[in-house]
Parts: sequence; C-alpha cells; structure tokens
Amino acid sequence: MTEHHFPLAAVVGADSLKLALCLAAIDPAIGGVLIEGPRGMAKSTLARGLADLLDGGRFVTLPLGASEERIVGTLDLDAALGQGQARFSPGLLARADGGVLYVDEVNLLPDHLVDLLLDAAASGVNHVERDGISHRHAARFVLIGTMNVEEGELRPQLLDRFGLNLALDGQPQPLERAEIVRRRLAFDASPDAFVQRWQAEQEALATRCQSARQHLAAIALDDASLGEISQRCFAAGVDGLRADLVWLRAARAHAAWRGAGAIEPVDIDAVEDFVLRHRRRQQAPQPPAATPPERPQAQQSEQPPQQGEGQWGELPAQVQAMGERRVPPRWTKKP
Amino acid sequence: MTEHHFPLAAVVGADSLKLALCLAAIDPAIGGVLIEGPRGMAKSTLARGLADLLDGGRFVTLPLGASEERIVGTLDLDAALGQGQARFSPGLLARADGGVLYVDEVNLLPDHLVDLLLDAAASGVNHVERDGISHRHAARFVLIGTMNVEEGELRPQLLDRFGLNLALDGQPQPLERAEIVRRRLAFDASPDAFVQRWQAEQEALATRCQSARQHLAAIALDDASLGEISQRCFAAGVDGLRADLVWLRAARAHAAWRGAGAIEPVDIDAVEDFVLRHRRRQQAPQPPAATPPERPQAQQSEQPPQQGEGQWGELPAQVQAMGERRVPPRWTKKP
Amino acid sequence: MTEHHFPLAAVVGADSLKLALCLAAIDPAIGGVLIEGPRGMAKSTLARGLADLLDGGRFVTLPLGASEERIVGTLDLDAALGQGQARFSPGLLARADGGVLYVDEVNLLPDHLVDLLLDAAASGVNHVERDGISHRHAARFVLIGTMNVEEGELRPQLLDRFGLNLALDGQPQPLERAEIVRRRLAFDASPDAFVQRWQAEQEALATRCQSARQHLAAIALDDASLGEISQRCFAAGVDGLRADLVWLRAARAHAAWRGAGAIEPVDIDAVEDFVLRHRRRQQAPQPPAATPPERPQAQQSEQPPQQGEGQWGELPAQVQAMGERRVPPRWTKKP
Amino acid sequence: MTEHHFPLAAVVGADSLKLALCLAAIDPAIGGVLIEGPRGMAKSTLARGLADLLDGGRFVTLPLGASEERIVGTLDLDAALGQGQARFSPGLLARADGGVLYVDEVNLLPDHLVDLLLDAAASGVNHVERDGISHRHAARFVLIGTMNVEEGELRPQLLDRFGLNLALDGQPQPLERAEIVRRRLAFDASPDAFVQRWQAEQEALATRCQSARQHLAAIALDDASLGEISQRCFAAGVDGLRADLVWLRAARAHAAWRGAGAIEPVDIDAVEDFVLRHRRRQQAPQPPAATPPERPQAQQSEQPPQQGEGQWGELPAQVQAMGERRVPPRWTKKP
Amino acid sequence: MTEHHFPLAAVVGADSLKLALCLAAIDPAIGGVLIEGPRGMAKSTLARGLADLLDGGRFVTLPLGASEERIVGTLDLDAALGQGQARFSPGLLARADGGVLYVDEVNLLPDHLVDLLLDAAASGVNHVERDGISHRHAARFVLIGTMNVEEGELRPQLLDRFGLNLALDGQPQPLERAEIVRRRLAFDASPDAFVQRWQAEQEALATRCQSARQHLAAIALDDASLGEISQRCFAAGVDGLRADLVWLRAARAHAAWRGAGAIEPVDIDAVEDFVLRHRRRQQAPQPPAATPPERPQAQQSEQPPQQGEGQWGELPAQVQAMGERRVPPRWTKKP
Amino acid sequence: MTEHHFPLAAVVGADSLKLALCLAAIDPAIGGVLIEGPRGMAKSTLARGLADLLDGGRFVTLPLGASEERIVGTLDLDAALGQGQARFSPGLLARADGGVLYVDEVNLLPDHLVDLLLDAAASGVNHVERDGISHRHAARFVLIGTMNVEEGELRPQLLDRFGLNLALDGQPQPLERAEIVRRRLAFDASPDAFVQRWQAEQEALATRCQSARQHLAAIALDDASLGEISQRCFAAGVDGLRADLVWLRAARAHAAWRGAGAIEPVDIDAVEDFVLRHRRRQQAPQPPAATPPERPQAQQSEQPPQQGEGQWGELPAQVQAMGERRVPPRWTKKP
Repeated sequence: MTEHHFPLAAVVGADSLKLALCLAAIDPAIGGVLIEGPRGMAKSTLARGLADLLDGGRFVTLPLGASEERIVGTLDLDAALGQGQARFSPGLLARADGGVLYVDEVNLLPDHLVDLLLDAAASGVNHVERDGISHRHAARFVLIGTMNVEEGELRPQLLDRFGLNLALDGQPQPLERAEIVRRRLAFDASPDAFVQRWQAEQEALATRCQSARQHLAAIALDDASLGEISQRCFAAGVDGLRADLVWLRAARAHAAWRGAGAIEPVDIDAVEDFVLRHRRRQQAPQPPAATPPERPQAQQSEQPPQQGEGQWGELPAQVQAMGERRVPPRWTKKP
Repeated sequence: MTEHHFPLAAVVGADSLKLALCLAAIDPAIGGVLIEGPRGMAKSTLARGLADLLDGGRFVTLPLGASEERIVGTLDLDAALGQGQARFSPGLLARADGGVLYVDEVNLLPDHLVDLLLDAAASGVNHVERDGISHRHAARFVLIGTMNVEEGELRPQLLDRFGLNLALDGQPQPLERAEIVRRRLAFDASPDAFVQRWQAEQEALATRCQSARQHLAAIALDDASLGEISQRCFAAGVDGLRADLVWLRAARAHAAWRGAGAIEPVDIDAVEDFVLRHRRRQQAPQPPAATPPERPQAQQSEQPPQQGEGQWGELPAQVQAMGERRVPPRWTKKP
Repeated sequence: MTEHHFPLAAVVGADSLKLALCLAAIDPAIGGVLIEGPRGMAKSTLARGLADLLDGGRFVTLPLGASEERIVGTLDLDAALGQGQARFSPGLLARADGGVLYVDEVNLLPDHLVDLLLDAAASGVNHVERDGISHRHAARFVLIGTMNVEEGELRPQLLDRFGLNLALDGQPQPLERAEIVRRRLAFDASPDAFVQRWQAEQEALATRCQSARQHLAAIALDDASLGEISQRCFAAGVDGLRADLVWLRAARAHAAWRGAGAIEPVDIDAVEDFVLRHRRRQQAPQPPAATPPERPQAQQSEQPPQQGEGQWGELPAQVQAMGERRVPPRWTKKP
Repeated sequence: MTEHHFPLAAVVGADSLKLALCLAAIDPAIGGVLIEGPRGMAKSTLARGLADLLDGGRFVTLPLGASEERIVGTLDLDAALGQGQARFSPGLLARADGGVLYVDEVNLLPDHLVDLLLDAAASGVNHVERDGISHRHAARFVLIGTMNVEEGELRPQLLDRFGLNLALDGQPQPLERAEIVRRRLAFDASPDAFVQRWQAEQEALATRCQSARQHLAAIALDDASLGEISQRCFAAGVDGLRADLVWLRAARAHAAWRGAGAIEPVDIDAVEDFVLRHRRRQQAPQPPAATPPERPQAQQSEQPPQQGEGQWGELPAQVQAMGERRVPPRWTKKP
Repeated sequence: MTEHHFPLAAVVGADSLKLALCLAAIDPAIGGVLIEGPRGMAKSTLARGLADLLDGGRFVTLPLGASEERIVGTLDLDAALGQGQARFSPGLLARADGGVLYVDEVNLLPDHLVDLLLDAAASGVNHVERDGISHRHAARFVLIGTMNVEEGELRPQLLDRFGLNLALDGQPQPLERAEIVRRRLAFDASPDAFVQRWQAEQEALATRCQSARQHLAAIALDDASLGEISQRCFAAGVDGLRADLVWLRAARAHAAWRGAGAIEPVDIDAVEDFVLRHRRRQQAPQPPAATPPERPQAQQSEQPPQQGEGQWGELPAQVQAMGERRVPPRWTKKP
Repeated sequence: MTEHHFPLAAVVGADSLKLALCLAAIDPAIGGVLIEGPRGMAKSTLARGLADLLDGGRFVTLPLGASEERIVGTLDLDAALGQGQARFSPGLLARADGGVLYVDEVNLLPDHLVDLLLDAAASGVNHVERDGISHRHAARFVLIGTMNVEEGELRPQLLDRFGLNLALDGQPQPLERAEIVRRRLAFDASPDAFVQRWQAEQEALATRCQSARQHLAAIALDDASLGEISQRCFAAGVDGLRADLVWLRAARAHAAWRGAGAIEPVDIDAVEDFVLRHRRRQQAPQPPAATPPERPQAQQSEQPPQQGEGQWGELPAQVQAMGERRVPPRWTKKP
C-alpha cells in the first residue's frame, strides 16, 4: 500500500454519506449513490475512501468529456492492424470492475452516457457489440455520482435509477470545519503516519463492512418490512416501484451493518431519506408530507448501532436537512 | 434455458400491458406497442417477458444513441478490404427478426430513426440501399417502445404509427406494490427456483398465445364489428384511418386470445383504449368524450376470459386511468 | 406483376386526391402534388397507386435523412479506385425517372434538398457537377410530397413551386371509414384475388389516363379560359404568376380527363382549389374570399364526367373542406 | 442556338427589371442587380434572358448549398494524385466569366459566400490561394441575386454592395397576367417558332445593348450630373458613397441606352430608385422623403426612349411601387 | 509599379482616418487601427493606400472564414509526404510581414482568431507550435480592422487591444461626395494618368511618413506629456492602462508627423479621440464627459501642421462626430 | 538571460496581486490564482514576472482554442508510424511543469478543459490514458487564470477550485498611471538597462520568495489560527471547506513571506479577501456581511512586512475595492 488515501474512518462528520456508501458496498444491488452538494465538500475523498473498503479496491474516475468508446472499450487497433485480429481493448468499465466508478458532476454528462453507466451498474455486465466486436465482461462496481443542482439537473428517469441519493450540508459548524481541515492537513503533511494512526479504526470499519456483507444473505427480506415500506412509498406518492425494492435492500444492508439478524423498524427509518429524496414528487400529496415531521430526526438518531468500532459509526446516522428538491436555476452550460 | 428471465406469467398486475403485449404477439400486423409511464415500472422486464412467448424469442434492445448504420446494418468492412467484396454486415433489425425490438425512451430517439424503425416494423422488411450495398432481409419483430412524456413527446405522426398505446399507473396500491417486489426478490434470489415455480403458468400462457395465433386466421374480420368500430372512431374524432384498421385487428386478436370463434362486442371494448389513447384529439368532440363514461370500466371487466390459465389471465383487462393526454413540460434534453 | 400494390381504382373516396394525382400524371408539366393531412390517411398507398398508372411505373420513396449524394447520385468509388475512372453512380432521381418520387413529410426535409427536388421535377433533368463528375440524365417524374402542417411548414417560396396542393379530410364518415378498411383488409388477406377483382376498373382507369394524355395536346390552352383564370388569380390576391400557368394546364388536363375537346368552365372550377389552396395570401382580399361561397360545392359536383369507368370516377370531384391555411403550431423538430 | 431560351424581348411588363438588367449589361461596373419579389415571378427567366444579350452568353446558376470550393475552384485531385501536379480545377466563378451568375434566394446563402461573390463581381477576378494552389483568373460577370424578404434579409453591408435593387410587383393586373402566361405557353409549346417570331425584337434589343455599350465611353460622367446626384444622395440620408458612384454610372448607362450623347436629368431620374431603394435609411430624413412624391412617376414615364425597337422598350420605364423597406418577419430558416 | 492603387494622397476628406493610418505606420507599436463606419466608405481603399507608404508595401486581406491554419501557417504536406520532412508552409501572417494586414468586418471573425491576430500584431512574431512543427518568424505588420457596429460588436477585451479607433462619417456633404466620386472615376478611367497626376503629393506623403519614422526615436516620451495624458485617462474613466501607453506613443508619432522635436499639447489633443473612443465607459463619469465639449473641435483644427506637403495634410485633423458608443442592435449573424 | 522580461519588482502598485502571486509561489498547494479585472491591466506581464521567481521559471501560455490533445499531450504520430511504437508526445502541461501555466480569459475556455487544468494543478500530475497510451508525468505548476466577468462567468464549481481570487482595480490614480507607463516605456526602450537597474530589487524579491519557501515547513498550521479561520468561513456562509484549507495555507505562506515563525492574526487578515472573494454567497448571511466593515482595510495595512526589500514589498498589502460579486451581463460569446 505505497500510495496512501485518506482513510474513510478518519473523515469527520458526513455520517449520512459514509453510511450510504457503506450500504452500497454491502449490497451493490442497491444501485449507485448520487451525492448532491456544493463545491469543496471532499466528495471525491469520501468516494475514494470507499474503494479501500472493497476487496477489489479499484477507484476509477470518469473524466468529464470521456467518449463512449473510452467508457465501454473498443477495438484494439494495434491488434487489428498488426495481426489482423479483432481484439477487444477494455475501457473504464472494465477497470472499475470490483471497485468504485466515480463520476464527478454526473449531471453534466450527456444523457446516453449516464444511461449506459446505469445499465452497466445495474446489470453488472458490460456488453459491447460494435465495430465488429462482440464482447461481454463483468462490470460489477459501485457507481457514485456527484452533482451540484445549481449547475443543471438530471432527467427524472435517470435520477430514479440511482439507488440512493443524499445531499451534503455545505456549511458545517466551525468546530467541525476546523477538525476536518486539521485531519486533512495531518494527512497531507505525513500520509504514512496519518494512515497508521487511523489503521485500527479503518480496519475495524473494513471488517465491519465485510462482516455485514457476509451476513447479508442470512437476513430475510421479510414481508412485514416490505409491507411497511410499500405503505410509505405509496404515501409518499413515489413514481414506480424501484423505491420499494431499493428501500427493502437498503434496510437489510443497514441491519447487516448493525450486526442484526433481521430488519427492524430502525433500519427502515434509517435509509428512508436516502431512498425517497430523489423520488418524491415535487408537489407531494398531503399525507406523506405530514408523516416525516411526525417521525422527527431525533428519534432516528436515538437508535445506536449495536456493533461497529469506527469512530464515526457511533454517531447517529444523521440525515442532512434537505427540504423539497430545489428547482435548478438553469445555469447555462458551456459546450 | 440457462439464462433465466422473469416469467411474464409471474408479473403482478399490469394486466393491460400484458394483454397488449400478447395481442401484439398474436397478430404482429397490429403494429408496435408504445408504453407510457413513469420510471421504475419494470417496463423492460415486461417486454423481455414477451420475447419468451414468441418462437424466435430474441429480445433486442436498441441502445440510446445507436446510429443508423448500427440499426440497419452496413458494409462489412473486413470483407470489403480483405476480399474486395461488398458484403452486408447485419444490424439490430436483423437480430430482432422473429423476436422483440425494445426501444427504451423512444421519444428521445431522433425522428428519422423512429421513422425507420416503424417502417421496418410495418413492412417486416429491412431494405438497405447505401454504400454500394443493396440488401433486403426479413425483419419481422414486435416493436415495443417506452416513453415518459415528462421528458419529451413524439411527433403525432409517429405516435399514430404505433398500433397500441397505453400508460402504466405509476402508483400501485401498497399491497400490489409489496407483491411485485416480493416476486422480484424471489426471482433475484433464485432464478432457477422461481422460474420453475411459475413454469406451469408460463407454459400455459405461451400455449395460449400460440393457440390464439393459430386460430387467428379462422376468425372473420366481420362487417358488423368493423361498422361498430368505424362509428366509434368517427365519434372519437380520430385523425386518419389507422385506428379503424388496428382496432379491428386487435379485437380479432383479443377474440383469439379468449378462444372465441368470432369478434364480439367484448373484444371491441377490451382494446378500445389501447387503440384510441394516442389518437384522440386533444380537444375531443363532445359525443365521443361523453361515450366512454357511459361505458364504465367495470362493465368492461365483467367480461371474463373463457379459457386461459395464466394467473393474471383471469383478472379482467383493466384499463389504467388515463384522462386527456398530458401536455409535455418541455423538459430540455441534453445533447 | 408478382408484387401487387393496392389498385388506385379500389381506393374509397379521396376523390380530390385521386383526381389531382391523375391530372399530374396526364400533364407532368403541372408540377408536383403536395398533400396535406393528418396521419393515417394512406397517403403513400394513393401515391404508389399512381405509379401503376404511369408507363414507367417506378415508385421511389425518398427516405427521411437522405443525403444530397444519395438523391443526386455520386462518384462510383469502386470504378474510381479499381479502374481509375470517374464514373457516375446514379441516385434516387435516376431511379425515379419515368415514375413517381414520393417524399413523405417533405416539410421535414432540409430546404436545399426540397429545392433540388423541385428543380429536377420542373426541368426533368438531373445535372450533377461535383467531385470531378459532370453528368446529366433525364429525371422526369411526378413529385408527390406529403406534409402535416402540425409538424412544421414549408417556406412559401417552396410551397408555391408545387403545382397542386390539397388537404385530405382526416375524418371520413363512418360508412366510408368501414369501406376503406374493408378493402384494405381484403387486399392484405389476398392481394392476388383483390387485384384481380379490381382489374377491370384499374385498367379502365389506366386507359382513361393514357387516353387523356394522348388527347392533351389537341386541347387548346384557349384565351378565354386564360382570361377567366387570370381574373380569378388577381382577385384571389395570389403572389406571382405560377398560379395562372398551372391553373390553365390543370384545367386542360381535366378537360382531357373528361374526354372533352376544349377547356370549359367546369374544368376551371374543378381544379381551382388545387391551384389556389397554397397560394392564397393569409389575409386574402375581400372579393375572392366572397366568391367561393357563392359557387357552392354542390354546383361543382353537378358536373358529371362524360366518360370514364372507374367506380370513383363517377363520383363528383369533391373538394375537401379547407378554409384558411392554418398557422403551424411551431412544433419543435428533433435533430 | 439549339437550346432556346425565352427571349428577353418577349417578356411582358417587368420593364424596370429589364431596364436594370440591361443597364448592368451595358456597364458591368455598376455592380450586381438584386431582385426582390414574391415567388412565381419568373425572375430566373428574366435573368437567363439577359445572358443572351451578352457576348459570352453563359448563364450559371449557383445552387443553394454550394460549397466555397465549388464556387471558387479547387485542387484538381486527379492531376494531384495521378501526375503529382497541383493543378487548378475551375469552379462556378470561372464558368460564369463573361456571362451571368445567378443566385436565387441569395439571402439564404451564408454570409461569407455572398461576400466572396460580391468581391469577385466587383474586382472581375477570382484569386484562389488555398490547398497549395495559387491561381488567379478573370471572373467578369453580371451578378444577379434574388430574394424574398419574407424569408430573411441580407446584412446591410452586403445589401449595399449590390449596385441596383428593385422589387417586382407580385400581383400584375389580369390582362397583363394573361399575356404573360400566353407567351410562356407559346414558348413552351414551340420554342423554335416562338424564338423566331421574336427574333427581330430580340436582335434589336441585343443590338441596342451592344450599341449602348460601345458608346458608353463617349458619354462624359459630367460634373453637373454628379453634383445633382450627390445632392440627392445626401438628401436621402444614404450611408456611404457607393450610391453616388453607382448612380452616376447607371445614369450614363441609361443615356447610352437611350442613344443620347450625354447624361440628362431624365437619366438621373430613371435610375434613382434602383440605386436608392436598398440604401435609404429605414427612418429616412424628412426632406428626401418629401421629394419623391413631388416627382411623380408619371413625369418619369413621359420621357420616351428615343431609339430602341423592342416592344417593351417603348413602354416607359415603370418603377414598381415599393414604399419603405419591409421589416423581415424573421421566418426561421431550416438548416 | 504596374498594378496601380488609388494613391492615399488623392483621397478626399477622411482626414482623421488618414492621420490615424499614418501614425500607425510611423510607430507600429501603437497597435492596430479599428475603423468603424457604414458600408460604402472605401475603407479598404484607404487601408490599401497605407501599404504604399510602408517600405514592405504588402497589403494582405484576411478573407472572412479564413481558418487558423491559413492565418498562422501549417505543415507543408507535400514536403511531409514526399520527403518525410516536417516543413513549415507559411500563412497570411507571414505574407503580411512588413506590410498591412487588413481585416474587413473584424467583428464577424471568431474571437480566438481576432485574439491570435492581435497577439501577433502586438508581439511582431508568429510562433507556431502545432502538428509537430515548432516555427517562429517575424510578423511585423500594421493591423487594420473595420467593423459596422450595426452588425455585431467586438468583446470589450478585444476592442481595447486595438491601439486606435475611429468612426467614419457615413454622410459627407454633397460637394465632398462629388469630389470623392470624381477622383474615383478619374482613377478608374485611367489609373496611369491618375497616379502620375498625384505622384508628387503621394511621394511627399511617403517622404513625410519616412522622415517622421526616422525622427521618431529622437522625440522624448516626456514626463509632462505622460502626466497630462494620465490625468485625462483617469478623468475619462478608462479601464486599464493601455490607453495611457498608446496615447503617449500616438502623440509622439503625431509630433514626428508634424516634424516637431517634442510632444506638444497639440499632439496630445490631436490623437485623443483615436485613443479614447473605444475605451470610454458607456456610462462615463461626469467630469470627463464635460471636458470634451469645453475643448471644441474648432480649437483643435486651428493647430496647423508645420510641415508636410500632402494636399490633405494641410487640412486640419478633423475628428468625426461620434457621441456615445452605440448599442449594437443584435443583428443576428448567419453561420 | 538573453530575452528579458519586465521584472516583477518593477511593477508599480498591484500589490495585492503581487502578494497573491508570491504566496502561490511559496506554497503551490494553495492552488491557482484567478485574476479578475478589466482589459489593459498588464495581467500577463505580472504573471510572467512570477515565473522568474520560480526556479523552473518556465512561463507557458494556454492559447484560446487549444484542444485537449495539445494541453495533455498525445500519441507521437511520427514514432507510431515510423517505428511502430506508441510514444507519448508531451503537451502544454508537460512544458509548464515547474513553472507557471497562464490562461488568459479562462472563463472562455470550455468547462472540461478548465476542469482538466484544475485537476492537474491540484494533483501535480498529468495522467494520460488514451489512444493506447498510458502515461503519467509530473505537472507541478502555478495556475494563473484571468477573466473579465463582463464577458462571462465560470461555473461556481470551477471558481471554488481556484485557491485565491482577486480583482484588479481598473482605474489607478493619475500619478500611479504615469509611473506605470513610464517604467513600461523605459523597459521597452532598453530592456537590458532596465533589468539591470532593477536587478537588486528583483533578486531581493526572488531571495525573499525562496527563503519563505524554505521556512514554510517550519511554520505550524496551528489550531488557534485554524479555529479563527473556520469561524470566519462559517460566518461568511462559504459553501464547502476548501476555503478553510486554502486560507490556513495562505496565511502560513504569508507568515513565511513576512519572515515570521508562526501564523499571526495579521496573516489571517492579509489573505482573507483572496480566499473569500469568490466563495462568498451572493446573498451573504447578515453577520459576516457586517463583520468586514468592522475590520476596516486601514487596520490591515498598518501591518507592515518585517522583512523584504522589494520596492513594493514595503507598501501595505492593499486589497482592492470589490464589493459584491457582480452579476455578469451575459455577453454573448462568439463560437
């Protein structure tokens, strides 16, 4: 491990996001995570930290302006010309297999590329059929996208295909700010020392993730939970059924994360906002709009994780203030 | 059958859609099916399920951003360069022959490609005349398109060329939601077991389709039915005559589906909304606007299928709530 | 005649359109025919039927998105590379020679291609001067374009260059609807039988066309008719003089079609709307606006054709309801 | 003269335009002629007729959508590849040398091509310096452009570079309409006979043009005329000085056309509107706005040409009604 | 001197422009000259006349639509392919070295090309680093651009980089108009004779320019002048400091032009408007707005040049009426 | 040092900018410097002067319109074709390594290129993975961008990634203007002499920078300073945490620049506006809006630098008047 990354365990706050990332790592079938928030929130640091918790560990960044060929792979021209063979030259999806594919400002990507990424993420397979090549390879990765709604929205259709969605609070309190910067500086000053100092917590976090992953299958996607979730989805006026499916999976992953053997109401509550945030209708029906206020955030945070030694794991999963989805201000994009 | 798909017979609800898909499979001359509805309604699962009911069984997805060459086929460059021969390299239309061509978000496709797909679907032939190639091959497939009107409309001209059109209800009731998710999870957990559990129903469904197909020709496109249909089309203020033709064919397919030997009023009623939904004028004339309320949905559902053993076949064909066509909100598309 | 087309003689109603198509076949110097109307009116069936009445008989469809090269012809690359010769490889205009060139949704074609088609149609010659090729070949064809004004207009300049223009009524009466569909189904069920059943009428129609063509030259473009026509054009506030020229020719073609030896008022009346429909100013001057109501449609239809045995030939030439040109609703086109 | 054109002498009316075309033929230094007017006014027939009056006689039409290479000429690829020589392959400007270059709908041409045409027309030289070629050849032609302001304007800068500008009246009186059509039909029916019938007039017209051309140099561009012209230009609030120069030349050409030996007031009056039409400011200063009404059209037409035997030469040069420049209605162009 | 140009000395009026051009020729470090004005003001004649005053004398016109390669130079493909050498093939900047680079309608050029021209003009060097070529050659030229603000503006950033800016009065008085046209006609009629007639004046003008150039270095860029200039720039609310620098240089060039040995107030006044015209803020601060009226134009013209024999040199340098910068009317450009 | 640049030490005023540039040179981890200001402020002279203070000293300008290949580097085609080797041909980032990368009008660059530059600047590495090349090289440079907000904004996301931001006052006082111009003229007149005259100051400045750089690591990024900074960032309603990090680093660089051993309040104050200018919310919360007025600029300037001999180093670091971020006037960019 010669090139060090900032350990996820050492990240201050951002507990919701860390939780969401871990859940996606525990059950990749949940789908990708879409992070909204202003600039300068170290979103990529967090995403990169997640890669360290996965076995494959690869962290692949999709550059703005990447072409379809670069993402999907293409004909190996060398082999084609030199040896007269049509050979596949793998792209970014192949490299991301087993790791994290990180797309900064995913809202600025052309729609058909977002579509393509979500398809591959959902199916775990990259199937290339072009230029005389017919190739298929595994592409199992956690897709993490970020966007700043000030600069343009995603189409609702694409939004829905991200499993979880959450917004970072752009303005932490002064003490938290200072601590975040302090750790960053400590890391920058001496990565080795820093990583070493956090090794125990980081390993504990990784272990917890792996353990949760192993026990996941043992936790039932039980009918009672599903019933409750479907009730809430209906009340929230959510379009379609992906919400129900994702919610149930995410709740189970949360139970596994807690070390529990079954989904409990606390698990359902803990991931509600991750699942509903981008799927609520803008003009939400009255009943569901009324419900969340009645189940205050505090209640949610009273439920502490039973096991888990990460320093931030002990903090309650704090859902950020979000309110209604903002209407994007139609910031014109440059070509 | 190593790679399993979710059996169409196991789909909960969505009865109208299943019915429409089966009718299109029974008489492909009806034309394609256009499915409107919000995100997350498993539209592609349903469409893929249809492919299993067809003999050819191939299910081909048209990727967003596919070029005309990729769809239609093109010159085989290898053969051209290597052997100096102009040989045809088949495209997606060739692969879809005998199966289903599925176009997700067909409203986002460039118009000339939609046109091309509809031409091939209508004629059952792909005729390529370009790059020094003159090639013609069968391209008989059921065209299934989906669209979310929130994200952009199809031109009326193209809309009309889809035989049937229906909208999925984006917000099923909680119990139905839960059952849908439950089956999906069961399938995902163990495809083999799931497919086996539904094998009987699925085979019954396939048999019913095939049987209907075989008996189709024996059912007359009788004058009385045609007279009734033309009356209703006129009353509905429908533009053009494709509605009449499609309606009569669809009613006959429905009769065949019921196992009946002749078109009956129930068949005409059952497919009315599939045929008229996208062809009614926005400001419909008074009489037809008044008619549908008089023939309430319940009445329609009282008519049970005489034969057919699919678990959902017993449910009445439920037409979804639709109302007037929504005006699309001019969501700007990204390039 | 192995591949059968629906015989024009068997088309129900659409008498105006059939008449206009025949007139264009009798005297191609009239210019092309532009058909407006909603979707699903079998416009292409009618146009294709016309091709059967012409000797050459070829029916060529211009695909949406065809390039200039494909239309006009281009350098034969094979010959150029293989034998070092610049040889012309013919395009769609060459194939349409002697037949019909059909352009569906001509309003969606780029202007310079419409221009090019109209030039070739008017001159009967395709003159290619590009890529080192200088080639000229006959391109005598009847140009038939269709458009749905809901989806975009043609520039007035281009509109005027179509000789005749008419609109199909999108909503025939129920009985007519049923008959149209009945014949279509009969044809689809058994093309051979259907074509045979209509053979007499179809041959009569073809004979009538050919006969009219032969006698055309014998009918004078007389001064009295011209004077009357110019009066009416002036009164209609028509821009330019193409209207006068086309009207006189169309009236003569109509006389020939009737088997008459001279243009009579009935001929002038019969084609008036074909000629003026797309050339009237949107804010027409009062006198001409008042005139048509005074010459009611009934009066026009009292004049029966003297000869001609087509089943629809006996029907009076019925001009469709048209009213003022609609302002196109600026439906945004997709690229 | 196997391929006949409609003789300019046989054109009915359009006297202003015929006059303007002749003046441009007599002194090409006047610059091009820009013809505005609605569709269907046989503008191209008139322009083509002019070519017959020139010695070179070539009539070249610039196709809409012509590329810069096609206009200017380009590298001869055959020679380049075959013989390794960079040879010039001439374009449309080379072909137009000595004749007429006709640009229909010049307002739809990209600006840099209009610029290029006007440069060549003004300098009489085509200078190509691209692709390793440095070539220069004579390109002396009369540039004739047409436009329909309903469909888009030319930039004022380009407008000014056309020497003369006039508008055709789109709605001639009935008798004139009929006569125009009558002659057209006579020509179409039998070009040979028609041309022969008009041969005397046409030759007289050609002779008159040639004679005027020969005597042109003998007529002084006298100071008194220039003074008068500059006064009027100033009064008209014309931008720039091209108006003065063109006016003086056009007046002299008119004197030569009349067979006179010196510019007289009648010459200055006769061409005033040709010169000022496109150069008057939209909000013209009061004095000049008042002047034209005081010099009524009738007065102008009292001055009969002393010589010239063309049937229309005897008609007074009638300036069409024009009024203020219309504001173009921003008709959106298709790509 | 076989190909004659209209001698600058023979130009009537336009004194400001002639002066500005001469100053730019005397000290090219002043930067380019941007000429605004309506069409038809013979701007290119004036600019071409300047080239004759320079030793190198080359006059290069940048065609609208020139590519970057054509301007900057590019790889010599012949040499590259034939001899395998990467050799530089010079562009328009190389040809303009030592002369004048004239850009008509510079406001219609893409921004990055304007930028490139201004960089080369400012540095006197063209540095090419592309396509494997690294080449650098002298590109010392006087850049002269014209624009018609009616048709689009330059970005302020680019505007400022032109050293001097002035507007031509589009409507000279009648007597001046006539004289301008008279000379133009004389030149066109007999270039040889005309040039000979003006030879003395033209040579005097050239001599005066050369002499001014030689004495330029001897004239101090003195502190008093600089102080005065900086005061005025500040008062004018000019953005940035290029105004001060250009003004001082232009004043010195004017002193040299007068034959004086030092900058005097008259020099500072004479060039003020050239320097400030395009740099004044649109909403100018009050004091400077008040100042110019107090220093009336007449006062400026009382100061006669001490030496110089050009016929127009004796006329006072007349600054055209300009007023506030006009807001461009957003004339839409065609592609 | 044959080619002389204007020494940074000789620049008059612009103290804030010089300070910001030096800080960026002392600690490149601060990130790039974004300079806003009107035209003609010699921004590039200042940026170029900075390069002289760095050891590597290279100054690379990114041309407007540079392609991604040119910036990042690309496949060496010569080597690829000639020797069949895929070799990397370095781009502008490689050349800028160790020096300054200057991007004039960075707001006019396409977003994905700005992104790419900021990524390389932040990571110090250019990692190319395209066209079969996988190459990585150091790209440590100080990124300096300029923009004129009148001509278009940067997206907030990109704005935030520039470490420091400041605006130049476009209108210095007359005396300062004169002095600036005087020095410029002196330099232009005799670069050698000028550079020599300022050699001592320039060397002192370079020494001071180098010394500050060496002592930087010895100065603690202490907790008290961080606490204070985080308080202020929170109060300013800054989005994200980059502000805190940059501020702390910039304050330390400022301390090093002063020769101090620890960050003191004066350091925090001195760089506040550089850090916050582009990160303050447009509608700033009340408390922070009130704070800056209470800490007047004068107070800030009382703090003189303890060491440093540059003539301008003795001037207080004067923060330019800035006020709220201006709303850009949406100046339309040309393509």
